[in-house]
Amino acid sequence: MKKYTGLDDITDLQELIAQARELKNNPYAYEQLGKRKRLVMLFFNSSLRTRLSTEKAASNLGMDVTVMNFNSDAWKLEFEDGTVMDADTSEHIKEAAQVISQYADIIAVRAFPTLTDKAKDESEYVISSFVKYASVPIVNMESATAHPLQALADAITITELAKKKKPKVVLSWAPHPKALPHAVANSFIGMMQKMDVDFTITHPKGYELDKAVVKDSVVEYDQDAALKDADFVYVKNWSNYENYGKVLATTDSHTSWTITDEKLGEARFMHCLPVRRNVIVTDSVLDGKNSVVIEQANNRTYSAQVILKSILENLN
Amino acid sequence: MKKYTGLDDITDLQELIAQARELKNNPYAYEQLGKRKRLVMLFFNSSLRTRLSTEKAASNLGMDVTVMNFNSDAWKLEFEDGTVMDADTSEHIKEAAQVISQYADIIAVRAFPTLTDKAKDESEYVISSFVKYASVPIVNMESATAHPLQALADAITITELAKKKKPKVVLSWAPHPKALPHAVANSFIGMMQKMDVDFTITHPKGYELDKAVVKDSVVEYDQDAALKDADFVYVKNWSNYENYGKVLATTDSHTSWTITDEKLGEARFMHCLPVRRNVIVTDSVLDGKNSVVIEQANNRTYSAQVILKSILENLN
Amino acid sequence: MKKYTGLDDITDLQELIAQARELKNNPYAYEQLGKRKRLVMLFFNSSLRTRLSTEKAASNLGMDVTVMNFNSDAWKLEFEDGTVMDADTSEHIKEAAQVISQYADIIAVRAFPTLTDKAKDESEYVISSFVKYASVPIVNMESATAHPLQALADAITITELAKKKKPKVVLSWAPHPKALPHAVANSFIGMMQKMDVDFTITHPKGYELDKAVVKDSVVEYDQDAALKDADFVYVKNWSNYENYGKVLATTDSHTSWTITDEKLGEARFMHCLPVRRNVIVTDSVLDGKNSVVIEQANNRTYSAQVILKSILENLN
Repeated sequence: MKKYTGLDDITDLQELIAQARELKNNPYAYEQLGKRKRLVMLFFNSSLRTRLSTEKAASNLGMDVTVMNFNSDAWKLEFEDGTVMDADTSEHIKEAAQVISQYADIIAVRAFPTLTDKAKDESEYVISSFVKYASVPIVNMESATAHPLQALADAITITELAKKKKPKVVLSWAPHPKALPHAVANSFIGMMQKMDVDFTITHPKGYELDKAVVKDSVVEYDQDAALKDADFVYVKNWSNYENYGKVLATTDSHTSWTITDEKLGEARFMHCLPVRRNVIVTDSVLDGKNSVVIEQANNRTYSAQVILKSILENLN
Repeated sequence: MKKYTGLDDITDLQELIAQARELKNNPYAYEQLGKRKRLVMLFFNSSLRTRLSTEKAASNLGMDVTVMNFNSDAWKLEFEDGTVMDADTSEHIKEAAQVISQYADIIAVRAFPTLTDKAKDESEYVISSFVKYASVPIVNMESATAHPLQALADAITITELAKKKKPKVVLSWAPHPKALPHAVANSFIGMMQKMDVDFTITHPKGYELDKAVVKDSVVEYDQDAALKDADFVYVKNWSNYENYGKVLATTDSHTSWTITDEKLGEARFMHCLPVRRNVIVTDSVLDGKNSVVIEQANNRTYSAQVILKSILENLN
Repeated sequence: MKKYTGLDDITDLQELIAQARELKNNPYAYEQLGKRKRLVMLFFNSSLRTRLSTEKAASNLGMDVTVMNFNSDAWKLEFEDGTVMDADTSEHIKEAAQVISQYADIIAVRAFPTLTDKAKDESEYVISSFVKYASVPIVNMESATAHPLQALADAITITELAKKKKPKVVLSWAPHPKALPHAVANSFIGMMQKMDVDFTITHPKGYELDKAVVKDSVVEYDQDAALKDADFVYVKNWSNYENYGKVLATTDSHTSWTITDEKLGEARFMHCLPVRRNVIVTDSVLDGKNSVVIEQANNRTYSAQVILKSILENLN
């Protein structure tokens, strides 16, 4: 693997999942592979799981890790070409990406969307600029429109826990007080399209996601109908896509989308976390036997580790 | 040891101090013990000594260390049970503690008190929530009411420097412009109650500490009388406990509590640091031959190291 | 080497450059030297290159590294002697430096100037206080008036790329919207005075640097004349020195100092970065074949590594 910025970088998903599961059983099998190699993790936004799991993954492979909170530790970056930099940006991404490449063997980047400028967000200007200008491989730790490490952890989790050959997986929207990105939903949809699952997306009318992502996946506006006989229910809020970044006025029909034991039935409850209790999902579901959110979080380590391993094997 | 959140977790203090002193002489004797083990240090507040000494201690044991400033790096945590999380907290401690446990072998936490809500502070809701929900051992790097790593370093220091079998140790209040926690004083008192010392507490009337902490330790309101023939004088400010978190109007009698050479006499001067010069103590004392504050700081490493060692030895 | 706070700490520059180039060819040759040694890097200001290159350098030598952003992670420091610390500073540098020395084998410090108080900046009170009170060697990661790690990287770069025995090197001022320190210019001048180069400084009248730094180096106010036949053009803005820390009203003659392809000719373009594109230098120069800024940044690793190596060899 030359980089991991989106699901398109995966050539053989089943092989990748199999290797991740082997790493989970034997995390230190490749601890010589990353020796004298350095992962520089750049955060433009907050992170808990991604930060800790990716650091652990790199460490399991013997890599050294540097974590930088870019906004507070370094200089404000300019991403536009040809700008006269006489205002508040101090360094251009062209230099920053090339310079960091002098000190890193792999660069991982987290950069959330603006949720105000759709075209800018969809250009993925931060991560794509790193890809363009860095001379080392780039890993996406959640960008404006994609969270491929999360999606791979989700694929590992579903593979581990599936009790039938072709489980029914439902992605359900749930309410949230703030405007959230589409990245997790987008990458989960893309991942389900690569897997042998019976996949349905459900959300209130008006919360349609990008058609280029949804493609021919089934969209069912009736949540109860969508959840019927589900094996896995992946719950996630996203803000409006058409009316970009907006949270539509919450109506009773929206608050009714909160996942309850009754709605979940015998399905497994999945969520990328952090999750707002009693807004997205009830305490009872989260604390119940069908919640697999902690195992999903655990699989973040092996998702990151298999990606870093694959990139390390292709260095030089 | 299964955790170290308070002095109650110590079963054999003399043995612990002896082991710490052995580690001080031979810091790398156990550097295989922590191999492939990760300490995640979570800071909800500032730290210098605790941060650097605990990281060094873990590193001496061969552990990997991750440091997170939780407030700036991650998500705002909810600690209340049953809340509808539709406001400013993004993640519940139930998930956070379980998730971090997926990436850590030991979790260390620093979380200061509010100093405005006595009941909340005394519930030790942050550290006790980590103990309740995490699946790995918890170490207290100073909580609302206790600083047991500091107290253990202090015990090591007194043991090293005592010139008689049962030294006289005095804990003296000193003035400070801001409201400070009771944690250091509480843990020092608890530690002295476990040691074979002649122990006296002295402070102005009105600055009485929690009776459940002081128990039957001697309280002498006359500072001069208390300091007479002392071998060790541990100086520390704390804010009011009854009138919780308040700094009472400073009077001449309060400013007179500043420790001077004359008051100290031939006793050793101890302080946990940071210390305000010429408020808590004069320059002359701090820079003089009887100050042992730097050795106390040095012993923070071996205090943390013996605790981590003891916990590592009990990990499966 | 006992410390590296300024160029005066260099005894044999040619030997140091030669060793740095050997480390560049064989970065892990001394990875046992720093085993069980810890570098504590203290940042009072932002950093990208210095932070990443110094961490990599220390790691190449087998050292453990702790990075602290002092302002946000720790306590506000007092530097004045004899102060009554009843205001906003919580810890005196005397304690802080001695305490950090308990946990570090080498301490590296970045602390920019105020640019408002010339006497205070020139006293180098931060770095000189660390030198005075710490019990371990101090490395300057850019102080109020000096950036000796950058200057050494620059010396390595010029040595590597020079095509003649005595190349012509020009330091040229360039415009910038904000007030910048003199540190990089000062240390570059000092370094050129130690090297066998034909050196010229050029800047608009009124931007004269400290005479104690410039000494008898050639100053040519006509930029075109200065740049004629140059082999290396080092470009850098600095704020006014006489009218301390001020940016004089920008005039046409100032904006004309921006480095262009025409001005540069066949010379190599050098800059310490971060650089403001189309203010300091045109896109065309920075993206062109004569820019060596990325190689300069790469050499920051070996500049730091040779200094740390030299200090480690002199420990104990």
